[in-house]
Amino acid sequence: MTPHPADCHPRPDFGGLRYGLGLRFVALLVQKFGGSSVADAERIRTVASRIVAAKRSGDDVVVVVSAMGDTTDDLIALAEQVSPAPPGRELDMLLTAGERIAMALLAMAISDLGEQARSYTGSQAGVLTDSAHGRARIIDVTPGRIESALAEGAIPIVAGFQGISPDTKDITTLGRGGSDTTAVALAAALRADVCEIYTDVDGVFTADPRLVPRARQVARLGYEEMLELAASGAKVLHLRCVEYARRAGVPIHVRSSFSTRTGSWVTEQRDEMEQPIITGIAHDLGDAKIVVTAVPDKPGEAAAIFTAVAEAGVNIDMIVQNVSSGSGQTTDITFTLPKNAVAAARAALSERREAIGFASLLVDDEIAKVSLVGAGMRSHPGVSAQFFSALAGAGVNVEMISTSEIRISVIVRAVDAPTAVRALHTSFGLDSPEEAVVYAGTGR
Amino acid sequence: MTPHPADCHPRPDFGGLRYGLGLRFVALLVQKFGGSSVADAERIRTVASRIVAAKRSGDDVVVVVSAMGDTTDDLIALAEQVSPAPPGRELDMLLTAGERIAMALLAMAISDLGEQARSYTGSQAGVLTDSAHGRARIIDVTPGRIESALAEGAIPIVAGFQGISPDTKDITTLGRGGSDTTAVALAAALRADVCEIYTDVDGVFTADPRLVPRARQVARLGYEEMLELAASGAKVLHLRCVEYARRAGVPIHVRSSFSTRTGSWVTEQRDEMEQPIITGIAHDLGDAKIVVTAVPDKPGEAAAIFTAVAEAGVNIDMIVQNVSSGSGQTTDITFTLPKNAVAAARAALSERREAIGFASLLVDDEIAKVSLVGAGMRSHPGVSAQFFSALAGAGVNVEMISTSEIRISVIVRAVDAPTAVRALHTSFGLDSPEEAVVYAGTGR
Repeated sequence: MTPHPADCHPRPDFGGLRYGLGLRFVALLVQKFGGSSVADAERIRTVASRIVAAKRSGDDVVVVVSAMGDTTDDLIALAEQVSPAPPGRELDMLLTAGERIAMALLAMAISDLGEQARSYTGSQAGVLTDSAHGRARIIDVTPGRIESALAEGAIPIVAGFQGISPDTKDITTLGRGGSDTTAVALAAALRADVCEIYTDVDGVFTADPRLVPRARQVARLGYEEMLELAASGAKVLHLRCVEYARRAGVPIHVRSSFSTRTGSWVTEQRDEMEQPIITGIAHDLGDAKIVVTAVPDKPGEAAAIFTAVAEAGVNIDMIVQNVSSGSGQTTDITFTLPKNAVAAARAALSERREAIGFASLLVDDEIAKVSLVGAGMRSHPGVSAQFFSALAGAGVNVEMISTSEIRISVIVRAVDAPTAVRALHTSFGLDSPEEAVVYAGTGR
Repeated sequence: MTPHPADCHPRPDFGGLRYGLGLRFVALLVQKFGGSSVADAERIRTVASRIVAAKRSGDDVVVVVSAMGDTTDDLIALAEQVSPAPPGRELDMLLTAGERIAMALLAMAISDLGEQARSYTGSQAGVLTDSAHGRARIIDVTPGRIESALAEGAIPIVAGFQGISPDTKDITTLGRGGSDTTAVALAAALRADVCEIYTDVDGVFTADPRLVPRARQVARLGYEEMLELAASGAKVLHLRCVEYARRAGVPIHVRSSFSTRTGSWVTEQRDEMEQPIITGIAHDLGDAKIVVTAVPDKPGEAAAIFTAVAEAGVNIDMIVQNVSSGSGQTTDITFTLPKNAVAAARAALSERREAIGFASLLVDDEIAKVSLVGAGMRSHPGVSAQFFSALAGAGVNVEMISTSEIRISVIVRAVDAPTAVRALHTSFGLDSPEEAVVYAGTGR
C-alpha cells in the first residue's frame, strides 16, 4: 500500500480510510470553489478540468461551489428594486438561485469531459440549519444522497451557502463565509481526508503580499493561529469556517484555483518544538474608534455604555479606559468597532447621553489594527518587547493594545499600517530571501 | 348570500364552495403570470398590486409565475457555452433557477404592499412528475403547504414549469407550456373556482387581430374548440394546459395582464342551441410540406415512410396520397410537419431511400395552414361548402385538406394566408362592426 502523495497529511483519525482496487489508498477530497473561480463559462470549464483531473488520479471528489461572480450582488440589487425591506425567507429563496445556476453549469462542464456529475442543493445534500434567514447556523449534515452518488462513481456538486430548516421546511442561507463553512461541514460529515478551499491567492502568507513584497507563504499552521489571523483581518479564510474545522478536526488546504501548487495547510496545532515562533502579521483597516469623553468616574458607567452599544447589535473589539483626568471626577472610554457599525453605536449612545452623563463622542475612522500571531509566543517571553521596539524604531505610535496568548494587536494611524507591518515582518525574521511571491489575485 | 360577481361562472361542481364571515362567497383564484408580465422590477410591482387587489376584494389567491422575461433563454445560452449537450437533469436544475428568482421577487413586492406572501418551488408546492427531464408530465399534485399558507391568510406564489420526480427525487421541468399547465393542475388539486391565465392579449379572438383588424374577442368557448384552435396555431393557450383543464373540469379565464377587462372563458361545451356556429379562425405558418415522389404503388410503402419518420421522433400533421400517375406503378405521398423537424425527417427518409424505393424528396416551407373551428359545425352541414366557396371567391388555391368533427383545415400558399383568413372571417359573419380591437401585446 502506497499512501497517495497529496494526502500524507497526518490526520489523527484514520477511521475513514478507504481502499480502491489493488489496495491503493483512495482519498476523499472536498473541493470548494468561490464565485471568482466560476465567474464565467471559461472559468467553469477550467475548474471542471481540475476536478476531473483529481477524480482521474484516483480520488473521490465532492465539490462545493458558490454563485458565479457578482450574481449574489445582482440579485440583491433586484430585490432592492421591488422592496426596500424584503422578508428574509424570500431573500434566501432568491439568493439560493445563484449557487443553483453555478452548480448546474459546473456539473454540465464535468459531464462534457466524460465524468458523471450531479448537482445538489443544500437541502438535497442534507445541510440542515436553524431557521435564522440570512445568517443560519448548520445544526446537522445528513449527506445520504452525496454518499450514494460517490458510491456510484459520480462527482457530487453541492451548492454552498445554503441549507434547509427542518422546523419550517424553508430554504436558508448561512451568511458571510457560508460556502467555506458548507465545505468544511460536508467534509466533516463525510469524514473526508481534506477540505480544499480554492481561492485567488496561493495560500496563507506571513503578511499581505500587497504591503510586504517579501512575504512568504506559510506551509502549515494551526487552527488557533488561523483563527487569530482571520479575526485580525486576514481575508483568506472566514473565522466561522476555521472554527467549524477546528471543532470537527477537518484539515483545510487553502490553495489557488489558478495554479496547481501546494497551498497552506491548516490543521491541529503541531508540536511546539518544530514551529516558528511567529506565524504571520495581519492588518485590518475596517475598524473605527469611538472616544466617549468625560464619563463620570464611578462604578457602572462603563457597563451602561457597553450595554447601550450591545443592545444596538454592535460587536466591539478593543477597549481602553484612560486614567481619570484633572479633578479625578471624569474619565474617557475608548473602544473600536467595525466602521459600518459606527452609525448604530453613535445613535444608541447619543440617545442615552443624559442618563450616562458623558460630554461628547469622538469618532476616528483613520485607524488600523496591526496584529502579530504565533503559537510560539506562549513559550517565548521576549516577543512583546521585540514587537514594541520594532514599532518604535519605525517611528509608529501605538494608540491601543490588546493581546491573547498567541497574539499581540495594536491600533495605529491608518497611514502607518504599511510601515508597521513591514517593520514587524523584518524584525521577526519573516522576510523571504527574494521578492518572488506571486500574488495570483492581482497577477492574472 | 350574494355571489361574488367575478365568479358567477356556472361551474358544474360546486363542492368546493367556501364561505367567509357573514356567509359571503369566497372564491379561490389561481392566477398565472407569464414571463413578459414579470419582465422587470416595475412590472413585478404592477402584478403584485393586481394580486393584492384580488386578495383584498375578499378572494383567496394562489399565484403561479414564470421566469422573468428572457431569463430562460439566457440560462440556455450559458449552458451551451459550457457544454454542447448538457444532461437533462442538470439543464432542469439550471432552468428552475429562473422561476425561483421571479417568485421570490414577486413575494417581496406583495409583502411590500402589506400582504403576506410566500414563494414555493414546484417541489415544495407538491407538483409531482415523471422523471422525463425537459418534458416531464405531472402525475399528481399534493399541495399541502399551499393549503396551509391559504389557511393562514397568506398568498402562495408557486414556481411554474417545474416539479419533482418522486422516483429519482430530482427536479424536473415540464417543457413548452409548462407554467400554464402548472396553474391548471394546481387549480384542479385545490378545487379552485377559476384558473386565470394572464397574457399580453385581451383573450381569445375570432382570428389573429394582426391579420384581421375586425376580429372580435370570444367571450366563452368550449374546451374542444380551444383545443382545436390551439392545435391549429392559436398561440394564446397551450394545447397541453387546455387538455388538462378539460380532463379536470377547471374553468380557464384568459385575460390581459395590462388591463382589468374581462377576457375569454374556456369551459365545458355549452348547450348547442345557444352557441354561434363558428368560434374562430386560426392560422399557422410553422409547418412545412414534404412530397415523397414516385413511391412504388403497393401495400406497405406508406407504412414504411411513416415508420421511418416516426422513429426520427417527428410528428406529422396532414397526409395526402395522390392518385397513381401515368402507368399506375408509382404514387406521390405528401405530408406536413413542423419546420424545425424537416432536417430529421429528411435524414431518416434519405437513409431508407433504396429500401423504400422512392425517387426524391421535395421540401416546401412556404405553406400556411388555415383552420375554421366551431362546435356548431356538427349540426350545420353547409359549413364546408361555404368554406370552400369563400376561399375560391378570394382566389386562394387549396393544396391539402383535413377535417375533424368541429374543424376544417386547409394548406394554402403562405402568402395567401392573410387573404384566406380575412375572406373566411367575413364570410362566416365574424367581423366586428368596428375596428376597435385593442391588441395589448403591440399596443404598449
